[in-house]
Amino acid sequence: MATINEHYLKLQSGYLFPEIARRVTNYCQSHPDAKVIKMGIGDVTRPLPRAIIDAMHAAVEEMSTSHSFRGYGPEQGYPFLRDAIRDNCYRERNIDIESDEIFISDGSKCDSGNLLDVFGTDNTIAVLDPVYPVYVDTNVMVGRTGDAGANGQYEGLVYLPVNAENNFQPALPNGRVDLIYLCYPNNPTGTVATREMLKTWVDYAHKNQSIIFFDAAYEAFVSDPEIPRSIYEVEGAKEVAIELRSFSKNAGFTGVRCAFTVIPKQLMGHTSDGSPQAIHPLWNRRHCTKFNGVSYPVQRGAAASFSPEGRQQIAELITFYMNNARLLREGLKAAGIEVYGGVNAPYVWLKTPDDLSSWDFFDLLLNESQIVGTPGSGFGASGEGYFRLSAFNSLENTEEAIHRIKSRLADSP
Amino acid sequence: MATINEHYLKLQSGYLFPEIARRVTNYCQSHPDAKVIKMGIGDVTRPLPRAIIDAMHAAVEEMSTSHSFRGYGPEQGYPFLRDAIRDNCYRERNIDIESDEIFISDGSKCDSGNLLDVFGTDNTIAVLDPVYPVYVDTNVMVGRTGDAGANGQYEGLVYLPVNAENNFQPALPNGRVDLIYLCYPNNPTGTVATREMLKTWVDYAHKNQSIIFFDAAYEAFVSDPEIPRSIYEVEGAKEVAIELRSFSKNAGFTGVRCAFTVIPKQLMGHTSDGSPQAIHPLWNRRHCTKFNGVSYPVQRGAAASFSPEGRQQIAELITFYMNNARLLREGLKAAGIEVYGGVNAPYVWLKTPDDLSSWDFFDLLLNESQIVGTPGSGFGASGEGYFRLSAFNSLENTEEAIHRIKSRLADSP
Repeated sequence: MATINEHYLKLQSGYLFPEIARRVTNYCQSHPDAKVIKMGIGDVTRPLPRAIIDAMHAAVEEMSTSHSFRGYGPEQGYPFLRDAIRDNCYRERNIDIESDEIFISDGSKCDSGNLLDVFGTDNTIAVLDPVYPVYVDTNVMVGRTGDAGANGQYEGLVYLPVNAENNFQPALPNGRVDLIYLCYPNNPTGTVATREMLKTWVDYAHKNQSIIFFDAAYEAFVSDPEIPRSIYEVEGAKEVAIELRSFSKNAGFTGVRCAFTVIPKQLMGHTSDGSPQAIHPLWNRRHCTKFNGVSYPVQRGAAASFSPEGRQQIAELITFYMNNARLLREGLKAAGIEVYGGVNAPYVWLKTPDDLSSWDFFDLLLNESQIVGTPGSGFGASGEGYFRLSAFNSLENTEEAIHRIKSRLADSP
Repeated sequence: MATINEHYLKLQSGYLFPEIARRVTNYCQSHPDAKVIKMGIGDVTRPLPRAIIDAMHAAVEEMSTSHSFRGYGPEQGYPFLRDAIRDNCYRERNIDIESDEIFISDGSKCDSGNLLDVFGTDNTIAVLDPVYPVYVDTNVMVGRTGDAGANGQYEGLVYLPVNAENNFQPALPNGRVDLIYLCYPNNPTGTVATREMLKTWVDYAHKNQSIIFFDAAYEAFVSDPEIPRSIYEVEGAKEVAIELRSFSKNAGFTGVRCAFTVIPKQLMGHTSDGSPQAIHPLWNRRHCTKFNGVSYPVQRGAAASFSPEGRQQIAELITFYMNNARLLREGLKAAGIEVYGGVNAPYVWLKTPDDLSSWDFFDLLLNESQIVGTPGSGFGASGEGYFRLSAFNSLENTEEAIHRIKSRLADSP
């Protein structure tokens, strides 16, 4: 009898985005002329930079002739891309990461789940609350939790609240945790981690022999030079942290698919008898056995993001989105709404006015302003009373959204 | 203390291809003028068909303007590709598979490992011997085996020998097994499964509530109309079988990356208390949580393989490689070597002459003929005394290889 992995049955249905879609569909059916502006999902909207398009065309054309055709590439990624990442993301910031510590993949979402394969099921996990749901769900799937309680939190996970009361600075766990997810610039709150804060976590990890999964998918949106863009800017981080990066949100690769994960060679886990075991060879084995590398034209496109033209064009994209974020922040403030994030991140996190629940504010915003956002409670219990708006939109839509919020929402309810 | 997944430490080092590379490097260093012909790895060599190149260019260009840019696509794949697969791979052969039973992925290797996520760790696994090593290693990684013995076989796995003695027809397991890997046309032996043989397995799976993982990565090489190209050509298979297919070996996608897995909705696993549980929603949840879909230009390229031009160009590729396979078969036979496979599959599996071990024949072939193949023992204990040659090469290299084998190897030892 083939048995299933019963941990999957603990998963709560992914109700957030389907529920949003259901409410939007209902609204549009009863208001067929409404011009709804969608600021919910964190998906980019601007086209790929020309330097990347050109590189992908050239790579596709290479595949059309025998002498330049490429079959299986290295599972870990082509050296031309790993070297470019080493030089541009790390050496340029005086961080000593080697090419063979960089593993190219088709997405940070995939990596954040797959990384769990090489760790024991007995590890205790800490996540921030609110949190990117994939961190939680992938741990449920492998059996590191019990069932979910009434507030949606799973038994056995350590949730670290971040909210206005603690200035979005998570407290260190009371006890010891083994694996810690940190995402900065943060999704969903749009807040950032200072160097001092990251140092606290790195020290905690050293003390407890913990490992930090540092998701830096939004690092390109950091403009403040005092804010680290890589956890490896913090001394001692290479011994305790894995960093996940992506081309999705900076270069516009959400539909093209390329990311990378850094596993420093000095990063150690432990066997149950306490012997240290480097994570690098385990992840390398996993990558080679369960993955076949990223599509060659995609890797060429990603590498082009580091060319002078590519960097310039990506800088323009970031400026474009961050102008939207600024407009959102200013417009919401002018409407009397308390806002966080949106300075070094493409998300604005707002406190719902009049203590509305996240879903009540969702309905209000949809009904009064025809704007779709994401209820904070969908990201975790501590997100209740908050709401996320995304800067990934056209300038026109962003300005129109602000106009509607100011003119319609400031008066109500 | 972050603990590692200690099952990884049971893995034997992937010695096969590194060891081949080591011996080839040594030979080339001492024979710098030797023209070595590599027929080892099963990687395609011909360029992508023009219809696919054109479709990929068009899709890349779509990504360059705001109105046609695409961000996140459906995790399961775009409808245009799922529908094309349904129509061309299944409906055309009178197989009733729906589009939403087809999950697009970046590779069959990835899928074959990832599929294990949704099954319990208590399942008993059967594999053929010799076998594609990924099936074994991914089960070791999740803890479904004990340690490896002296012959390389892992405790707890059920190995089903296939060799000339049983005409490459695996016997049904003595006891009950829960998950069964079948790969036809077979890698590495190049042999095929008749409809009757597959029916035996489907009946076995029904009787034992087992599930078959049917890897059909090489189905495009089947020319015999009596040989099934899909396990779903066998009645009752939809209740007990998952099918894995790939664009790698037919359309030349080993470097482009696209594959798909079919999970029929009526396929049931069971909870530990014996309640049936459909696999489809579990795999859908896994796909949505740990994967973000295949690159859009890649999916357009894959879809173009089903256009009239694409089909014609792929048929030419298959004919080209299968002509190589025929030349290899005939040449080896003329040299007095016993050969299998190579009729409905791009691999020729040969019995080493004079009872040489697989590795001794490897050295002989390299030293006498400057040809690199793959020792059968690298695929499992029952592959000892066999050897794999690949038809994925140029016509020129194939003819030269045959010439060398006939002129140099037929005389020795």
